[in-house]
Amino acid sequence: MLYFKNDYSEGAHPKVLEHLLKTNFEKLDGYGEDKYSLLAKEKIRQAAACPDAEIFFISGGTQTNQAVIATMLQRHEGVLSAVTGHVACHEAGAIEYTGHKVITLPQYEGKIKESDIAAFIETFYADESHSHMVYPGMVYISHPTEYGTLYTKDELTKISDTCKKYNIPLFLDGARLGYALAAETDLTLPNIAALTDVFYIGGTKCGALCGEAVVFTKKNAPRHFTTLTKQHGAMLAKGRLLGVQFDALFTDNLYMELSKNAIETAAMLKDTFRKKGYEFFINSPTNQIFIVLENKQMEKIKENVCISYWEKYDENHTVVRFATSWATSKEDVQKLIELL
Amino acid sequence: MLYFKNDYSEGAHPKVLEHLLKTNFEKLDGYGEDKYSLLAKEKIRQAAACPDAEIFFISGGTQTNQAVIATMLQRHEGVLSAVTGHVACHEAGAIEYTGHKVITLPQYEGKIKESDIAAFIETFYADESHSHMVYPGMVYISHPTEYGTLYTKDELTKISDTCKKYNIPLFLDGARLGYALAAETDLTLPNIAALTDVFYIGGTKCGALCGEAVVFTKKNAPRHFTTLTKQHGAMLAKGRLLGVQFDALFTDNLYMELSKNAIETAAMLKDTFRKKGYEFFINSPTNQIFIVLENKQMEKIKENVCISYWEKYDENHTVVRFATSWATSKEDVQKLIELL
Amino acid sequence: MLYFKNDYSEGAHPKVLEHLLKTNFEKLDGYGEDKYSLLAKEKIRQAAACPDAEIFFISGGTQTNQAVIATMLQRHEGVLSAVTGHVACHEAGAIEYTGHKVITLPQYEGKIKESDIAAFIETFYADESHSHMVYPGMVYISHPTEYGTLYTKDELTKISDTCKKYNIPLFLDGARLGYALAAETDLTLPNIAALTDVFYIGGTKCGALCGEAVVFTKKNAPRHFTTLTKQHGAMLAKGRLLGVQFDALFTDNLYMELSKNAIETAAMLKDTFRKKGYEFFINSPTNQIFIVLENKQMEKIKENVCISYWEKYDENHTVVRFATSWATSKEDVQKLIELL
Amino acid sequence: MLYFKNDYSEGAHPKVLEHLLKTNFEKLDGYGEDKYSLLAKEKIRQAAACPDAEIFFISGGTQTNQAVIATMLQRHEGVLSAVTGHVACHEAGAIEYTGHKVITLPQYEGKIKESDIAAFIETFYADESHSHMVYPGMVYISHPTEYGTLYTKDELTKISDTCKKYNIPLFLDGARLGYALAAETDLTLPNIAALTDVFYIGGTKCGALCGEAVVFTKKNAPRHFTTLTKQHGAMLAKGRLLGVQFDALFTDNLYMELSKNAIETAAMLKDTFRKKGYEFFINSPTNQIFIVLENKQMEKIKENVCISYWEKYDENHTVVRFATSWATSKEDVQKLIELL
Repeated sequence: MLYFKNDYSEGAHPKVLEHLLKTNFEKLDGYGEDKYSLLAKEKIRQAAACPDAEIFFISGGTQTNQAVIATMLQRHEGVLSAVTGHVACHEAGAIEYTGHKVITLPQYEGKIKESDIAAFIETFYADESHSHMVYPGMVYISHPTEYGTLYTKDELTKISDTCKKYNIPLFLDGARLGYALAAETDLTLPNIAALTDVFYIGGTKCGALCGEAVVFTKKNAPRHFTTLTKQHGAMLAKGRLLGVQFDALFTDNLYMELSKNAIETAAMLKDTFRKKGYEFFINSPTNQIFIVLENKQMEKIKENVCISYWEKYDENHTVVRFATSWATSKEDVQKLIELL
Repeated sequence: MLYFKNDYSEGAHPKVLEHLLKTNFEKLDGYGEDKYSLLAKEKIRQAAACPDAEIFFISGGTQTNQAVIATMLQRHEGVLSAVTGHVACHEAGAIEYTGHKVITLPQYEGKIKESDIAAFIETFYADESHSHMVYPGMVYISHPTEYGTLYTKDELTKISDTCKKYNIPLFLDGARLGYALAAETDLTLPNIAALTDVFYIGGTKCGALCGEAVVFTKKNAPRHFTTLTKQHGAMLAKGRLLGVQFDALFTDNLYMELSKNAIETAAMLKDTFRKKGYEFFINSPTNQIFIVLENKQMEKIKENVCISYWEKYDENHTVVRFATSWATSKEDVQKLIELL
Repeated sequence: MLYFKNDYSEGAHPKVLEHLLKTNFEKLDGYGEDKYSLLAKEKIRQAAACPDAEIFFISGGTQTNQAVIATMLQRHEGVLSAVTGHVACHEAGAIEYTGHKVITLPQYEGKIKESDIAAFIETFYADESHSHMVYPGMVYISHPTEYGTLYTKDELTKISDTCKKYNIPLFLDGARLGYALAAETDLTLPNIAALTDVFYIGGTKCGALCGEAVVFTKKNAPRHFTTLTKQHGAMLAKGRLLGVQFDALFTDNLYMELSKNAIETAAMLKDTFRKKGYEFFINSPTNQIFIVLENKQMEKIKENVCISYWEKYDENHTVVRFATSWATSKEDVQKLIELL
Repeated sequence: MLYFKNDYSEGAHPKVLEHLLKTNFEKLDGYGEDKYSLLAKEKIRQAAACPDAEIFFISGGTQTNQAVIATMLQRHEGVLSAVTGHVACHEAGAIEYTGHKVITLPQYEGKIKESDIAAFIETFYADESHSHMVYPGMVYISHPTEYGTLYTKDELTKISDTCKKYNIPLFLDGARLGYALAAETDLTLPNIAALTDVFYIGGTKCGALCGEAVVFTKKNAPRHFTTLTKQHGAMLAKGRLLGVQFDALFTDNLYMELSKNAIETAAMLKDTFRKKGYEFFINSPTNQIFIVLENKQMEKIKENVCISYWEKYDENHTVVRFATSWATSKEDVQKLIELL
């Protein structure tokens, strides 16, 4: 059985495991105060060219989105997100659980536009009774988006400028950030650090066993963020687990290197799909490939390949997702190509 | 200055005040255990032909929506509402504050359709990863809606049947219920009690100083609802204040009688608007009239009349609301007609 | 049947009702923007000699405590209260519902001591792992306390100084503030305004139908407090209801005058209890009298008088409460005295 | 520098790491649906002699306490805990953050007594106004407690019986459960499964990189627990990380074997402390040793040994904690003994 279902189906990159093993019996302080956490933070600051960054490690993505949004927002505020944004639809109400509304904006292949942000805010403040409504308090985007698409440097700059104009922070969810950076793109990690107020570097889907690195780019971490993550249940006693992994990921450019594999194997697959005349649901430049299949054809493929149901297309067709990852082998890709 | 800004600009109907005065020095138990609260509940049960109804009085509308929704929903559930529903946009995030998502459905002149409810629920459960999303746990409608429109008996029956089919409760927000019942409609109070799981009878906007009567129609009040309303800050020590008022409102058909005045005065106004060629933004059968005005014309009217800004129509036009109420005098309507 | 069960068993003082009646048909803006709300605020500023006070009206006590505490605290903070404080035990978890811990301090006849506040805070910050605990973020006291006792000016000054020293706000719950001010005391309303950061003037138990006036004394109302009260369900559309009442209560010294009646009638009763050798559970200078009764004697009294169970004293004795109010008549007191 | 500061200062037991390595490239489903999670659950069911157990893995202890308590409690309920219980004081308000009160009971060397539970509940329901208070909805204990002490089988049986009598669930926090089971005790894992409604088996402090196994013993997991853990941010995409570790921990009795090391090394240390006349603050049979040191002596020891400040004893003395763990080497213990 081939497995192209998602990008979190293996453990961790061997170098990450190796670093965990090598440091296993060092006695280290808890709660992220260990030396590897400090080293990892320093390496991330350098990689992001953001010397002032305040960095925290959190074990999973939903938890990270929840902790960042709930602590950056003021109580009367909600977060703006694409209607297809992860926090808007796939986190079981984790944002609302913290008492905040997710305010939805139109999406264009998973992305939002600065003009929609501006229009929402202008309309909001023009409304005489806006004090009876939820204030727009933050913009959330993901990069890559839910559909694997990417913001260009120009697009992110415009969104960033709009946020600055209206004085609300911009948060970039980088659950798959490695795959964004390794794809064909003009948007670098230092660009992202410069253009956002806070973002996170996904580990779970990009080579780690678990863990995400939250980067507050402007010395703007919420006061008492450590206590608040504990309050959210988001602080690990054994913080080294995350620090050691990110130390490995940001040594010798590993995070970028391992991410490339996902892009390269996805490119091989996309090429094949294109040649064989498959219909792309969306044109994603990263590691997720969305294909429209006839239902019978889908059933046939599923006999040999694990893939993800994405959404119903019409009565006879379904959108499915093929995902590659840092761990996808070229042999598996070759086998899949032969099957198609 | 004429005043057609809203339907909560006066105090209470004289008979309500009179009843408060007459009972003022009777010594009564607190927290809704007084005899007038009990009497009022009994009268409401009769008016609604719902002998099993469990009834609670709460001081305001937002609080009522908040208390009902937060206690009827299970923790993994959200509430379905028209995208224009009061709980979706005009309550400062009061529902999300309790940890629950408001899931929006398309609106048709403020109303929702049973087919959209069904489609949402079917799509939800068909999604293989629906356990990662917010479950649809309740349907919220308002009657009249935000646009003053009304459900017909047939429409409400279909929505009710759909809710029963999918086993989720139907909640009807009746902040202006009197004006719905007094309008031209085939939907009676007993119909509403039969077709919904819970609804509330608005007092604040229909003749009371304050207060709403929540009616659980099927012996289905959430367990410990009293404790939960206290926890929400929604329980008055001096519960008599609400009981006495609703006792007056449901004596000698007062609630219906006073509501009629709003409908009659609105009809006079609508007639005039129609004759004079004003453009109606929406065709509302109740006490709220939405008119599209040229901006200059609006400014001119506002010199003599208090009205509500509703929304921008285009660069040169604005939608405004003229509202009548139980207290609107025919003299004021006449003066406004002359002005137009 | 005589009624000494509590101080919220009647409606409102006749002058309050009269003012409601007189203003009933004036057309006024909603949400506390009406002229009577503005007038009432100005009169309260003058009575409290606090020209900068920011004042809001909220319909009930639990709601007021909830809204003030939840919006004054930072997210990592809890509120310090006597273990017998209302927010610590009699509000169905309304504070915890907002996500904040009530941290309890020892009580002395219902009061707390500045030395316990200081000791708690010193110990807290001395603990190396205090960032894993709830920070002390506010001090809550009630005046009168749950036991009807009063802080002296000296005691409140010391508590106030301690709060200033540690830079946390002091909140005084004045649900029965009128009865504190009308008792024998050296602590005036201007003193309270000067020594606290926020307090509230209770209407529900002191002559109003409902309503409490929250006074932020140092231009320190939380940002967007109006939106937050709406979010809490604590904002009345018909804000005039509260404004008109407080306008009456703070005209011609009415609030003080009506409160005196409770103190005078309580004094008559206490005198009788003392003469007849009843055992006082606590020595309260205000309108609540706590007496230890033999259980049989209690049952006998309850045949003719409504009183409150307070707590079990021992197997054969119970603590009961006799409460007077602004509305207690001297005739009723006389009848009770004869009965005893 | 010797390190006896806590029991989470190393990585994971080598056999746990080995299992992670061996399974690293197997492609497995996410969210705990992988075969190792299923295997681990089955092994835990067997070890606990609890074939009906419903088991979930969560990454950390605070998160586990938060998710279990918040989902087992009804909305009007709070959790009973020793005043020294972890959830009462060392979790930054994580329980209150979910809207629930922690109700404190007296502690006896960290433990609670069934008589105090019964007394609290009896007094609660005897209070006529208990519907205005937080209902007791669950009993929380930890085993070992915060002071390293253990419940006997008899004590736990009595607490369990009391919970059954009053129909509220009993929750046992087993963050250090391995060290309880490996100590001299008559309370076995099957006993715990039989006597509690839910408990968790701590991994973080007992040999794992991270992770706790929540065991609902009576087919009583809250409905939709998976969705709720996601909502709490407590669900890992890469659930295998926890499943593989617990599979290793419950293979060949590893969990018990590695826990013994902590008990044996602690015993060596306690013996030395006893012989040398050190004052024990409390007599703990597990891996935490609480010693009263003169402040100067403490400073001297801290030059060579990392230990934990516990609490101030008096002006000149401090309580400190020496902790051993599954990873403590006998060499280190020997060095410490020589130092003392």
